[in-house]
Amino acid sequence: MRPPPDPTPPRPRQPTITDVARLAGTSKATVSFVVNGRTNVADATRERVLAAAETLGWTPSRRARSLSTSQAYALGLVFARGPETLGSDPFFAPFIGGFESALAELDRSLLLRFVDGPELEEAAYRRLHDQGRVDGVVLTDVRHDDPRIDLLTQLGLPAVTLNRLDGPSPFPAVVLDDLAGTAAAVEYLVGLGHEHIAYVGGPELYLHTTRRRLAWQEALESHGLPAGVFVETDFSAAGGALATTTVLGLTVATRPTAILYGNDSMAIAGIVAAQQAGLHVPRDLSVIGFEDSELSAHVSPPLTTIHSDSFTWGRTAAEALLELLRTGDSSAEHTLPPARLVIRGSAAARADPGR
Amino acid sequence: MRPPPDPTPPRPRQPTITDVARLAGTSKATVSFVVNGRTNVADATRERVLAAAETLGWTPSRRARSLSTSQAYALGLVFARGPETLGSDPFFAPFIGGFESALAELDRSLLLRFVDGPELEEAAYRRLHDQGRVDGVVLTDVRHDDPRIDLLTQLGLPAVTLNRLDGPSPFPAVVLDDLAGTAAAVEYLVGLGHEHIAYVGGPELYLHTTRRRLAWQEALESHGLPAGVFVETDFSAAGGALATTTVLGLTVATRPTAILYGNDSMAIAGIVAAQQAGLHVPRDLSVIGFEDSELSAHVSPPLTTIHSDSFTWGRTAAEALLELLRTGDSSAEHTLPPARLVIRGSAAARADPGR
Repeated sequence: MRPPPDPTPPRPRQPTITDVARLAGTSKATVSFVVNGRTNVADATRERVLAAAETLGWTPSRRARSLSTSQAYALGLVFARGPETLGSDPFFAPFIGGFESALAELDRSLLLRFVDGPELEEAAYRRLHDQGRVDGVVLTDVRHDDPRIDLLTQLGLPAVTLNRLDGPSPFPAVVLDDLAGTAAAVEYLVGLGHEHIAYVGGPELYLHTTRRRLAWQEALESHGLPAGVFVETDFSAAGGALATTTVLGLTVATRPTAILYGNDSMAIAGIVAAQQAGLHVPRDLSVIGFEDSELSAHVSPPLTTIHSDSFTWGRTAAEALLELLRTGDSSAEHTLPPARLVIRGSAAARADPGR
Repeated sequence: MRPPPDPTPPRPRQPTITDVARLAGTSKATVSFVVNGRTNVADATRERVLAAAETLGWTPSRRARSLSTSQAYALGLVFARGPETLGSDPFFAPFIGGFESALAELDRSLLLRFVDGPELEEAAYRRLHDQGRVDGVVLTDVRHDDPRIDLLTQLGLPAVTLNRLDGPSPFPAVVLDDLAGTAAAVEYLVGLGHEHIAYVGGPELYLHTTRRRLAWQEALESHGLPAGVFVETDFSAAGGALATTTVLGLTVATRPTAILYGNDSMAIAGIVAAQQAGLHVPRDLSVIGFEDSELSAHVSPPLTTIHSDSFTWGRTAAEALLELLRTGDSSAEHTLPPARLVIRGSAAARADPGR
């Protein structure tokens, strides 16, 4: 008895870089060099490679290109913030330090750009890509409907995002759940008798600000508390001090007895602003920061804060991008330990629970 | 009367890139591209350029090469410190922010490397140079007999140093006189009645630590005061707190009534360490920082500190390197306004002048 005929004829195998190298009599690396226009290949060899590719109908896959562009030995970070932010927002320095810590061991560099505005941002990514200056980029400060997603997809520039996008993403994400820490901070304050808990956050432009603000709102609701006061700032110490003075200027009935801040330097400045307003921290006002920067344990009172470990976040982001470049697997998600509340001395039981 | 014969026949003019471009019928930029092995030149053009260069006996000068390698569009900073320093030493973040501020407008990037140890440092500079990844570098944390000077001279990699070397230098310097600020701080404390003034500095490895320590010593001597206690730290807040506890553990006769710190975070942590030791700042102990970081005005007491403006220092360093790349003039010296004392609330009259 004859076997039944195979319903689908075997599909011809797609040619690979290995086939091209074999036909051209070169190494795969040489094929990659030729495809990417490098000059370290003799003209005769180059012509053999191009002829072999044409014969086989082979075009370089994205994977092969990334193999070659990894010659940049640099990963990129483009910040659409003023460069002065680097000094005032305690997130950046440890994040970049962690990023570097993953690269230093591998003889890779961090290529850092600050840009002022969306047009310059797009031009910067295009230029880094077109000139082959970076092997890939990490996207921080992801925004709502972030235009960089389409741009990088179109450029074919490998990328990793900090936290997930608000829609489907073509890129691996490095996720640090900062919501758990925010919820824990609210729960801790509620346990101390606080009912009016304000939030002093960064620019609403960023997903992370919105996400943390929503986490704070939801935590208030889940404890049956009234909506709290939210103040948007620029993440600077001066901004934190001003926001605190504003919040404390509210009439007593709505004035918060506790404030969560978007970073530690705003919280530290907020403590002093409260003291200047005649309040004692934590007796009259409880304060909780975000970051757990090195200094936060060494101020007075020592800062109760949400430990988010930007150093590890930066390190993991760099490692995730290196892994993407190595494997081409863009579905990976790298999850860090969630942000957690570190209890020190800047929050205490509400002084006037009868109010 | 015949003029006397010219004793030396006119020396034939050296051929220039302009001559090669004219003979080859190309632009100077094209000649530069060919010489530097770029791929954006048609083969026929490349051959015309190489033939013209050979005919004229022209080889690219260092100047011409730097014109082409400026295609890296990146300036390098290599830090031989642990990446975690970026988060704990308040110098780095504003310095890098200032550096970026000069580059952002010019569509240039900062290429940042951290290295662990001298061998890796040398390898990093060599690699950045050999791969054409940077147009030049800025040397921070200049050390005694710094080996990078010979290395970079040999590599021909354009460089700018922060402050002057302790010997002759082939590189432009960006000078911020931090001695005047240190002398002013000591004078201010002496005027407040202090006689025992300690210094908590960074690693003695660095010229800047030694220079500031000497400035403090000389200021004490010039006021006829006894030598003060010096403690070497790692520039971290924890290091500053520990050094303060150590200094305050001295017997009363030699215990300082005032401490100068090598940076603001050590000073802020030092204030809290003193408070934990039962002292009031500034009544029992006067504290002066160094940097005038954004947070320093927003702590309690607000920090009296030496304003050194790392942001402007970073910006000027980048501008100086760009100028060097443009002009080739390595004799330039860029002088910033000297560091100056900013009087706030952490230093006061000595409480026990009769001691």
